[in-house]
Amino acid sequence: MPELRQDPIVGRWVIYSPARSARPHDIESVVTRQGGGDCPFCAGNEHLAPAEVYAVRVGGTGAGQSGWQVRVVTNKYPALEPGCGEIVDPAVAPDCLILPGVGVHEVIVESPRHLSTTTELSAAELAGVLAVYRQRLVSLAKIEGMRHGLLFKNVGVAAGASLEHLHSQLIGMPIVPPTVADELAGGAAFLERTGECAWCRLTADALAPASRLVAQNEAFVAFCPPAARFAYETWIVPRRHASHFHADEELSFAQLAQLMGRVIGALERLIPGLAYNYIIHSAPFDTHSPDHYHWHIEIIPRVASFAGFEWGTGCYINPVLPEAAAETLRREVTARR
Amino acid sequence: MPELRQDPIVGRWVIYSPARSARPHDIESVVTRQGGGDCPFCAGNEHLAPAEVYAVRVGGTGAGQSGWQVRVVTNKYPALEPGCGEIVDPAVAPDCLILPGVGVHEVIVESPRHLSTTTELSAAELAGVLAVYRQRLVSLAKIEGMRHGLLFKNVGVAAGASLEHLHSQLIGMPIVPPTVADELAGGAAFLERTGECAWCRLTADALAPASRLVAQNEAFVAFCPPAARFAYETWIVPRRHASHFHADEELSFAQLAQLMGRVIGALERLIPGLAYNYIIHSAPFDTHSPDHYHWHIEIIPRVASFAGFEWGTGCYINPVLPEAAAETLRREVTARR
Repeated sequence: MPELRQDPIVGRWVIYSPARSARPHDIESVVTRQGGGDCPFCAGNEHLAPAEVYAVRVGGTGAGQSGWQVRVVTNKYPALEPGCGEIVDPAVAPDCLILPGVGVHEVIVESPRHLSTTTELSAAELAGVLAVYRQRLVSLAKIEGMRHGLLFKNVGVAAGASLEHLHSQLIGMPIVPPTVADELAGGAAFLERTGECAWCRLTADALAPASRLVAQNEAFVAFCPPAARFAYETWIVPRRHASHFHADEELSFAQLAQLMGRVIGALERLIPGLAYNYIIHSAPFDTHSPDHYHWHIEIIPRVASFAGFEWGTGCYINPVLPEAAAETLRREVTARR
Repeated sequence: MPELRQDPIVGRWVIYSPARSARPHDIESVVTRQGGGDCPFCAGNEHLAPAEVYAVRVGGTGAGQSGWQVRVVTNKYPALEPGCGEIVDPAVAPDCLILPGVGVHEVIVESPRHLSTTTELSAAELAGVLAVYRQRLVSLAKIEGMRHGLLFKNVGVAAGASLEHLHSQLIGMPIVPPTVADELAGGAAFLERTGECAWCRLTADALAPASRLVAQNEAFVAFCPPAARFAYETWIVPRRHASHFHADEELSFAQLAQLMGRVIGALERLIPGLAYNYIIHSAPFDTHSPDHYHWHIEIIPRVASFAGFEWGTGCYINPVLPEAAAETLRREVTARR
């Protein structure tokens, strides 16, 4: 069984997951780049993938068969294992809080075809994928003891992808992850200080003339945040305030898919061979202070390595000011409208 | 002039450094692997490197000439630029704190020979390098407005090294970096809670039988921390409590060099082709609460990639429990004593 441990000094959490390989020579990441034949995520190879959890299917096909558009399977090397309801009292080691490593780790296979980046999906297909994200989060939120679900995608080796076939991952955890806890506390403090939601404020600022706007549509605004960590880092924020992605009833998947496609497309044209992560930032399931948080998507182009300086300081070095990055991206997005 | 910006929501700092390349096609890290001929850090090529700041020399040679053992030059692509005394009032943008990006960014070239890892230095040579670390930090601490100096080393492409020739870097900043601020606050809270220094406590725990000890000598203890983020992550902590590396008058460079060599050697035998970072964690120059902090060195083997999960949660996934990692390393260290 995996373990969750909390550092006794700075409070960060670590998941100890022996299933993700325990021996030194297994640690280096191995990337499977094959399409068709051996790819466990390609249509026809359903038997090569772990158990199916959920799928969007055409009529008449059954679980484990071909005929799906989006398919959710358990992760072959789960970071956490089922059993959330079973947490009773955390064991407290002399120097470190230890919890059983329970949770959920799923893979969302985004197409039966061997695609390798999000922009190879049509806008309608991507909207369908986003609807599956919501379905899985809604399902996760019902599990007793589950506090947060993180939906993220790694595209490209430099972004940590271990399989090329387009997929996202969902990790459900019995803790509120530090990043989310920091954002919640920061959002609450910003509201206290200014009377406004921080993300509503940043969105409004981005729309000011000659500012950090990248692109927009009726429902969403894409912009470079004022203290972007990475060159061309872009956030997509819904115009209407909502704290939880999975509970945002008015969310238009079509609008979101359209804007994601435009932004990722612009990044790909700008940075050939782009590797990237995107992450849905959403409030914890058990947060009932909707004013403190505003769900959004952060898109991180992996154009810099993380070295001793970043580990030592927690600071980032970014060669491109967000205003300059936004101007370049805005031009790239507009050129292809 | 570079800029320092603080995120208005979570408070993290970003250095905007146009000198570190502003155009997309320049962003990918370029690694120079040549020895001898073109290497700006090899003896005889002093003219290819930026200005010399300091050097340990044999008698009769002058600045910019060969004949040095350890040589400090300014970074060719400095993240921050000189001018610390000039900070007056920070400019406050509507949504983000902005400071001028002043500071110091130096490179410590650790040998005139084209070495590529720390263990190619003799223990006496490494002790000499550590003495230069101290000299540079002492010098930095005297600059008005300088709050912290981070000494770190990147070895291997996977660890972010852009030049192969063995070197470390020193970044002096007019802010206390978030990682250090978190450790200081965590150390103060641990002391308040338990009456003990957190690092003294972890060191004592590591020495308990069958625990997380890797190696020890008279002055230092090397162990895997109880919530290690990375497989085989190892900390080296001085037995005697001291908050600042540069002001620790009783620090034995010989003892520290001996233990660093043994630990890094064991990691290299265990993980062929190892890339790693090490970072000296030391209290800010202007911290006068020596009980809250205990300087130490963190050695990070770069055996895992940082992907969407880590960015999204701030949690780490580690396949190896620190007790198991320590046992393996202990055996490896002992085998070669």
